[in-house]
Amino acid sequence: MQTTDLLVPEGFVFTAVSSGLKYKDRNDLALILSKTPASSAGVFTRNLFVAAPVIVAKEFLQRSPTARGILINAGQANACTGQDGVNDCLRSLEIAADSASTMVSADGTKKEEFLPRDILPASTGVIGMRMPMDVWESKIGNLLSCSLGKSGPVDAARAIMTTDTQPKLAGEEVIFETSAKRTASFKILGMAKGSGMICPDMATMIGVILCDVQIETDLWRTLLGEACRVTFNRISVDGDTSTNDCVLALANGASKVNISTPPEIHILTQALERVCKRLAQLIVDDGEGATKTLLIRVNGAIDDEQASSAARTVGHSPLVKTAMFGRDANWGRIVAALGRSGASFNPKNVSLRIGGVEIFNDGRPLHADSDYLLEEVMAAREITIEIGLGEGAGSYEFLTCDLSYDYIKINADYRS
Amino acid sequence: MQTTDLLVPEGFVFTAVSSGLKYKDRNDLALILSKTPASSAGVFTRNLFVAAPVIVAKEFLQRSPTARGILINAGQANACTGQDGVNDCLRSLEIAADSASTMVSADGTKKEEFLPRDILPASTGVIGMRMPMDVWESKIGNLLSCSLGKSGPVDAARAIMTTDTQPKLAGEEVIFETSAKRTASFKILGMAKGSGMICPDMATMIGVILCDVQIETDLWRTLLGEACRVTFNRISVDGDTSTNDCVLALANGASKVNISTPPEIHILTQALERVCKRLAQLIVDDGEGATKTLLIRVNGAIDDEQASSAARTVGHSPLVKTAMFGRDANWGRIVAALGRSGASFNPKNVSLRIGGVEIFNDGRPLHADSDYLLEEVMAAREITIEIGLGEGAGSYEFLTCDLSYDYIKINADYRS
Repeated sequence: MQTTDLLVPEGFVFTAVSSGLKYKDRNDLALILSKTPASSAGVFTRNLFVAAPVIVAKEFLQRSPTARGILINAGQANACTGQDGVNDCLRSLEIAADSASTMVSADGTKKEEFLPRDILPASTGVIGMRMPMDVWESKIGNLLSCSLGKSGPVDAARAIMTTDTQPKLAGEEVIFETSAKRTASFKILGMAKGSGMICPDMATMIGVILCDVQIETDLWRTLLGEACRVTFNRISVDGDTSTNDCVLALANGASKVNISTPPEIHILTQALERVCKRLAQLIVDDGEGATKTLLIRVNGAIDDEQASSAARTVGHSPLVKTAMFGRDANWGRIVAALGRSGASFNPKNVSLRIGGVEIFNDGRPLHADSDYLLEEVMAAREITIEIGLGEGAGSYEFLTCDLSYDYIKINADYRS
Repeated sequence: MQTTDLLVPEGFVFTAVSSGLKYKDRNDLALILSKTPASSAGVFTRNLFVAAPVIVAKEFLQRSPTARGILINAGQANACTGQDGVNDCLRSLEIAADSASTMVSADGTKKEEFLPRDILPASTGVIGMRMPMDVWESKIGNLLSCSLGKSGPVDAARAIMTTDTQPKLAGEEVIFETSAKRTASFKILGMAKGSGMICPDMATMIGVILCDVQIETDLWRTLLGEACRVTFNRISVDGDTSTNDCVLALANGASKVNISTPPEIHILTQALERVCKRLAQLIVDDGEGATKTLLIRVNGAIDDEQASSAARTVGHSPLVKTAMFGRDANWGRIVAALGRSGASFNPKNVSLRIGGVEIFNDGRPLHADSDYLLEEVMAAREITIEIGLGEGAGSYEFLTCDLSYDYIKINADYRS
């Protein structure tokens, strides 16, 4: 099996426009279309307040096994806007579907007909404001029609950014030998936006996965759920979970590679996880104000759930996060966070490594001054914190970032 | 019943010295002694990593219903120091007891004899370092003896500060009519230190309560536990719980006012809660980098526990806390935090007031632009956030502060 980077799956086209909905002088609306109906999947926020596009996308996914497009706007979340917000969302999809219907079919012979329910919506931005529907009515339909398919995936990834400093993309072409000893290949591409209100169980993140395999919808949905569980749901910037988080995924079959046997499923699962993991890492790397990425690995917990509690408590601790920002190997804050995490362990059996250097064992520090030993480790962009609880076989990995002045700056000033 | 402010309970003496343990040019060690044995009580951190002084104080409280003093050092937590740390702590108490034994008895006739187990220890500061016992041996005993009783409560409160910007004291004299129609009075005084790693279930806070009532130890301990539950355990600066948190309380009977009947107990309970609540408020006001105090009041939850989850999730949200710092009435972040809090409710029934101004009802914002309405509210030092969940009778109040640049500055640089 070989993989290469960032090739665009067959049969998808990208449109990015400066809609006038929110940002000036940049694209803030993306429409991604599949030339043919694609197996569709979505994973959504568990927040009780769900934004209108989440309500609508969930319903569409429930009603139909396929979809043909994804519409994302940045700047307005369309959350806490009640039935009005749902109506606004549906109307925006009508306008987008009308524009999409000007696209020529895959075989080049005729115009396609898109229905609003063919397109899955997602929004990100400030909570509570209605979308300015007059802008949709007067401007956006034309804009989309004129720009249809003229952008690439990087443009689309840029158009969905809010406080992100960089577009986030990951993808690969997977070439493998089928059971019939023939060479087959498919492409998978992901894009995401972060970068605050990021927490396990989704975040204010939006993720898009495009793939050109042929796959049953049920299986595609299972694979997406599992990939999210071990990637996007294990990252945190600030512990906050938004009303709009979602990952939407389309598999349109354009590669004509069918995925149905266990070896094929395994290959796709791994590619999907790699792409999601890479995107998750990009989100944390670009966490609001982040100067460091922290990988927290807990072993020896009674079970995985307790390992998760321990890793998350350390990863959410403002004291740990500010210490890392300050390049301060303040392991006392790490063990103090462990001790309040709810995980069961005997403090006397706890061990701790930072950047591979063992600094704590049997519940005690190993060195009178570990600062000197860790100077280089703390200066690095990525810091690994390995914790052993000495109880059982439970383990968990959690990815987060430090807490810096810029996080405060970004979030104290966000709306102004 | 009348109350007046900050009178010192009878029969306590205060000593504060510049010990050389940590800080230069300021007092960093306090010894508070009672002239007679006092009913003793303590409430401690629930962190699994408990510091040596917590281990020792708990054991002393278990062994004896009375104590005669409290010894507190600032700068070194004596946490994660194993049996060595416990031995260091015990040795420091021997030195303190020897010094205390130079004090003249309450009736002025003879020198008192203090034993190490008469004194309850507490430490605050950096985790993991051993106390420099040579300093204790060579210097501190003499220092304490020379300074014995020459300080006041404000000096003691200053000596236990770490990143606190102000000493924290609260107290009152309570004058009431006894069941025998006689006027009686007692005094109660509290002091505390904050101001980071502050979270419900204690914090890196240390609290001291001194009172001159006569009271059975069991009752005194019950009253302290309850007072802490509704005051110190409902505040947060950053969600972190330290290894050293404790509230120690002595009631020495010097006022000769006995507290045993329900009306008397009620009067003492209320005074104790007022003092603890005031201290809790002072800790939050002086939270690391805090520019605002946030009172989060949740009503209408299914039960008090769910109300607590909702209030704490909002109060711990970095996005809510940074918005408040930025004077941004970003209610979207408040409802997003509610939605992930784990409390059960129907979003359509949720209401929200900030500073008394209703801005959200039936799951929707009431105003297109609430920023204008809330300009004055957001400029205030104290901001009340009232949340209605519309489910039941569960309620909870939670006190926290905003998250500012200075929190980052203080905690990124703490050890350097």
